[in-house]
Amino acid sequence: MTVCVVGHSNPDTDSVASAISYAALLNAQGTDAKACMQSDADGLNPESKLVLDRFGLAAPEAVTDAAGKQMALVDFSDLAQGPANLADAEVVAIVDHHKIGDVTTNNPILFRAEPVGCTGTVLNKMYKEAGVAIPKDVAGAMLCAILSDTVNFKSPTCTEDDKAAVADLKEVAGVADTDELFMDMLKAKSAVDGVPAKDLLFRDYKDFDMNGKKVGVGQLELATIDQVADIRDALMQAMQEVKNDGRHSVLLMLTDVVKEGTDLVVISDDIALIEKAFNGKLEDASMWIDGMMSRKKQTVPNLQEAFGC
Amino acid sequence: MTVCVVGHSNPDTDSVASAISYAALLNAQGTDAKACMQSDADGLNPESKLVLDRFGLAAPEAVTDAAGKQMALVDFSDLAQGPANLADAEVVAIVDHHKIGDVTTNNPILFRAEPVGCTGTVLNKMYKEAGVAIPKDVAGAMLCAILSDTVNFKSPTCTEDDKAAVADLKEVAGVADTDELFMDMLKAKSAVDGVPAKDLLFRDYKDFDMNGKKVGVGQLELATIDQVADIRDALMQAMQEVKNDGRHSVLLMLTDVVKEGTDLVVISDDIALIEKAFNGKLEDASMWIDGMMSRKKQTVPNLQEAFGC
Repeated sequence: MTVCVVGHSNPDTDSVASAISYAALLNAQGTDAKACMQSDADGLNPESKLVLDRFGLAAPEAVTDAAGKQMALVDFSDLAQGPANLADAEVVAIVDHHKIGDVTTNNPILFRAEPVGCTGTVLNKMYKEAGVAIPKDVAGAMLCAILSDTVNFKSPTCTEDDKAAVADLKEVAGVADTDELFMDMLKAKSAVDGVPAKDLLFRDYKDFDMNGKKVGVGQLELATIDQVADIRDALMQAMQEVKNDGRHSVLLMLTDVVKEGTDLVVISDDIALIEKAFNGKLEDASMWIDGMMSRKKQTVPNLQEAFGC
Repeated sequence: MTVCVVGHSNPDTDSVASAISYAALLNAQGTDAKACMQSDADGLNPESKLVLDRFGLAAPEAVTDAAGKQMALVDFSDLAQGPANLADAEVVAIVDHHKIGDVTTNNPILFRAEPVGCTGTVLNKMYKEAGVAIPKDVAGAMLCAILSDTVNFKSPTCTEDDKAAVADLKEVAGVADTDELFMDMLKAKSAVDGVPAKDLLFRDYKDFDMNGKKVGVGQLELATIDQVADIRDALMQAMQEVKNDGRHSVLLMLTDVVKEGTDLVVISDDIALIEKAFNGKLEDASMWIDGMMSRKKQTVPNLQEAFGC
């Protein structure tokens, strides 16, 4: 059986690049594997599209139901972030850099998670340890994933390991200027013109189980918050619709990559709880949080503490 | 805060050696850590005692409550196999070679599990990758853990990685003859004279949650089954007492290391289910299963399938 290598739902560049990268490593090691993602090619975000185009890579195959399949998970280990029926699939490997989720197995498998900025960084180590050369195009995608996840090294999740991996991968991929590559990605990622508000909300969005309450957190990384000034009402309308679908709260992080902070927009059944989580005061349903760049390292842990997880 | 590095309850040699080994690696990498185990020194099994004596190592410190502590887990990732209040502790790292358990975290951590025969094999790789030299005494304990877990390479869980690790570690530890070392360990491990039956049952014992039912599985590795001929009734009495304490089934694997098979003794609320799990027939509450050496790779997966896990 071919192993389906898949990242989390609402795939970002790391989920896409890591699926491609780990599938290639498994194949090089004699395990039949293919890169997959939880959407069709139209569901790629603009940044990921640019990355695949830039390095001439095909979009991973769509997979939405894991039943009866052998699955390798990259960039997540929570059942809720996987395809349908993941609990009934045979998970054969996990490579990740997030908190440890609730996927369990009946047999010993490879589980390799490290507290670094990007799954691509972990995969770069695994290639080295296995003595397998990374194909040039794959190295390019991994490089982009690290630049994206670490916000060009500015995110608090960024580690020395991530910087070392970028130094390795830029050589293999033949990229001279990673700052220029990052700005190209940022321009693609932060383009909002003509994009429906709900698509923007879902561009990089995840649901979390917070002590029994469903909480959605989206993030838009922007060159400047002004980019969304004209569509703020439409974004809040989209958030309200998503919240109405059984969620306790929906948060949207409007992250200013240059100013290095986030305008946090909140719709919630318990505004006071969210304000407490971030030790701030919402005005017109939003608050500026200086230095907040990372959903994983800053927003989610604060919410978990406030929700008593 | 000092990180407590701890293996599973009813510690075996891998749990003890891996706690010592990973604590030493963490300290070498600048993280203050100490080796712990879920019993006091009197709770060491005879094999582990021999190993620590042979290489001049101190027994890990006893830890039975994890509340408020920073914990690194070795050789398990199931909450049920950890100290009390593990769910309320901060788990900062996991190194293992078993199926993926139900420990989750709120933050990204190192989780390194591989489908190999022993946690010691994974740790040997981690030392290499970190460029840290393994102390001679620690290498000796890791070597013994691999020989023990793989039953001197005879267990179906044994991989090429385990053999490669033994080749590395015997050099560092200065052990010329690993067969001789294994036989010394086996003699210590399988000694039953004068040991109370319940202590024998608990020598290498684990509880599992099988679809809501509590099932205990012990294993005694013996040079010959005859060693326990005279205490068979006492062992079954001990199993019955343990079963009466809220368990659906208690199984004891009497594993003949030379004949490479197991006399499986069973006390259960559902004998037919256990017979189905192993495709055999119990006579006088036991059945011989040729080739069965591994609780993890053979006994537990068969039970999980029969219980519909």
